[in-house]
Amino acid sequence: MDLEAYLSGYADGEGCFCVTFNRSERHALGWDIRPSFSVSQNRERAQILELFQRTFGCGAIRPDRSDRTLKYEVRSVSDLVTNVIPHFRSYPLLSAKREGFEVFAEVCERMNRGEHLTVDGFALIAEIASGINRTGKKKYPRIEIKV
Amino acid sequence: MDLEAYLSGYADGEGCFCVTFNRSERHALGWDIRPSFSVSQNRERAQILELFQRTFGCGAIRPDRSDRTLKYEVRSVSDLVTNVIPHFRSYPLLSAKREGFEVFAEVCERMNRGEHLTVDGFALIAEIASGINRTGKKKYPRIEIKV
Repeated sequence: MDLEAYLSGYADGEGCFCVTFNRSERHALGWDIRPSFSVSQNRERAQILELFQRTFGCGAIRPDRSDRTLKYEVRSVSDLVTNVIPHFRSYPLLSAKREGFEVFAEVCERMNRGEHLTVDGFALIAEIASGINRTGKKKYPRIEIKV
Repeated sequence: MDLEAYLSGYADGEGCFCVTFNRSERHALGWDIRPSFSVSQNRERAQILELFQRTFGCGAIRPDRSDRTLKYEVRSVSDLVTNVIPHFRSYPLLSAKREGFEVFAEVCERMNRGEHLTVDGFALIAEIASGINRTGKKKYPRIEIKV
């Protein structure tokens, strides 16, 4: 069986391509942009998270603070651009979630080129990221943009 | 990409192999046993439900009564045994959900042979079905056994 296609199917249902904006004094422009790919699962079915980790060769599995599940998460922009995004280009999502993935990929690729470090680049990334389906929240004071 | 592996991955996260017992005057033994495979999804991402329906060549897509989602569902024992179960034997679930699937498959196969129509056969099927993870409920007055 094609494990990579399987994981894309799993991620189409359960995966989250997320861009979070947090206020941050440490960042020159006052904001920290954090893209992440994550998948959550009950502890007794954690095998699938290990398959993601092994296949992507990056990311961490940790307990989710909000409930009793485990979460596999890739936060490193470099890992996202090198490992995660190419996977979903080769084994694309088949639902409309794909459109959100494309926006997510563009945000990550621009950040990987350092574009978020300039005022114009940051503004553009914020605008692009707002194209990802939001879960009811507005603008980026601690927005979580999920797809 | 291997669509069948993709759908198994999707079902590993979002699919439900379910056996429901309902009191029924119409049935000789006073119970109606209903196995079903189902997948739910938001309306804007219904493509994936259509892929299941097309790939399995059976089942129906309908609005879910409980919320605003759509549900793809196969209820016919014959369709489950002929189309759905062989798919998940060829493209097996990779999480612990697989154990529940195997129990589900055994229930369907026994029903397909008419075993539920005898008292002994029914009792055995009820016992086997109780091996599927339950969502907190007990015995079969309107049990829904999900995996």
